[in-house]
Amino acid sequence: MSEPKTVTACLIIIGNEILSGRTRDANLQFLGENLNALGIRLMEGRVIPDVEATIIANVNEARARFDYVFTTGGIGPTHDDITSACIAKAFGRKLIRHPDAEKLLLAHYKPEDVTEARMKMADVPEDSILLDNPVSRAPGFQVDNVFVLPGVPRIMQAMFDLFKHRLTGGAEMLSKSIASYTPEGKIAARLTALQDEHPALEIGSYPFSRDGKHGSTIVIRGTDAADIADAAEKLRAIMRDLGNEPQEVDL
Amino acid sequence: MSEPKTVTACLIIIGNEILSGRTRDANLQFLGENLNALGIRLMEGRVIPDVEATIIANVNEARARFDYVFTTGGIGPTHDDITSACIAKAFGRKLIRHPDAEKLLLAHYKPEDVTEARMKMADVPEDSILLDNPVSRAPGFQVDNVFVLPGVPRIMQAMFDLFKHRLTGGAEMLSKSIASYTPEGKIAARLTALQDEHPALEIGSYPFSRDGKHGSTIVIRGTDAADIADAAEKLRAIMRDLGNEPQEVDL
Repeated sequence: MSEPKTVTACLIIIGNEILSGRTRDANLQFLGENLNALGIRLMEGRVIPDVEATIIANVNEARARFDYVFTTGGIGPTHDDITSACIAKAFGRKLIRHPDAEKLLLAHYKPEDVTEARMKMADVPEDSILLDNPVSRAPGFQVDNVFVLPGVPRIMQAMFDLFKHRLTGGAEMLSKSIASYTPEGKIAARLTALQDEHPALEIGSYPFSRDGKHGSTIVIRGTDAADIADAAEKLRAIMRDLGNEPQEVDL
Repeated sequence: MSEPKTVTACLIIIGNEILSGRTRDANLQFLGENLNALGIRLMEGRVIPDVEATIIANVNEARARFDYVFTTGGIGPTHDDITSACIAKAFGRKLIRHPDAEKLLLAHYKPEDVTEARMKMADVPEDSILLDNPVSRAPGFQVDNVFVLPGVPRIMQAMFDLFKHRLTGGAEMLSKSIASYTPEGKIAARLTALQDEHPALEIGSYPFSRDGKHGSTIVIRGTDAADIADAAEKLRAIMRDLGNEPQEVDL
């Protein structure tokens, strides 16, 4: 059986407000989880400012290195929304007013509310595919492997749900999480041995404190369900051997 | 008067658990805000997996480009904690067991709880400066302009508070936020003109919906308090002119 391909993704979060701490990003966690469910692995995230040269350089580097690139932020109507123009420059394409996007916006706004600033949200790089926005209408767009999305989480998420069936995933990443009140420092050596026995799996350890007791959650990830089940069974035995009952964690 | 220097920083968030969506990062927002208060601008954030080559490449690129680099994650006792070894390789230095860190850990753990895995947390690149950890003792460390911190937010934050006086800031970034029930699409053209009149300021616009009404918060940032006050006064007049009362926002 041939090894299933790993399909990779990068998220570029565009926005001074994230870097200044004004706004806490929620899109990386959403995409990490939801791409995973499609068999696509988020391999890198970047948070960059609203600066043209920075956006262009990051988009061009990422689209060459990853199967899919997602950007969030900077596609609204104000002067600091420069993402669409930057994506056009990154691809060396003209920024055009997309007739379908224009129609959408003209249908959405009352005539007296139509402003040039709002119509700017219909401007996309030539030969883009529009991405439906079921919340506030102004669409996102796709150019080749780059998906350009708004920063507001509930709009971004609603849009993602509408186009995700068009993404092609690879091997689905499965995972099993098991916790116990064994602190990391006590289970570490056994985990190293377990990882060595299962080189195709990714075994992660995450400490926690609860009711004054220290413990660790062990996450086993991989694409082979049988391999994961085998490692999980050994892990439960290790935890019991160290005097703590394993607890299955829903995640 | 000479222009005060802009002091820059980059945060590298190391951890598969952030990329998989298991854990939502909280460190970028904390550092963005807290560096800002010291006159240091967080210019970029990156989220990368626990992969040696990726960590080394990102650290080396970032430490050449930014005044300060912070890393979070991957300095615990388990096999997936590889940050310290990677930082040593990035700098071409040996990883050594730091005698002071060793003493700290030996004093912290009961003799029967001392494991080799735990003592690994005393391993740092040669000629590192230890960073005190008032919560769980295992220290972080500084090598040149790179500060290596744990991923657990409350530990990272407690450590930052202890060493932040050693960071040298530049011009402090001041900001003023004013909101009104004017939607972005209605205020956008006026904002563009305001931005053009105040090229040294960064004017950002962030939409919100509350009680079914759309509005926008305008954030004016810069290093010159008088310039900000002047732009803020003009902004209040613009909002009133558009029929909505400006509301000062605490942020």
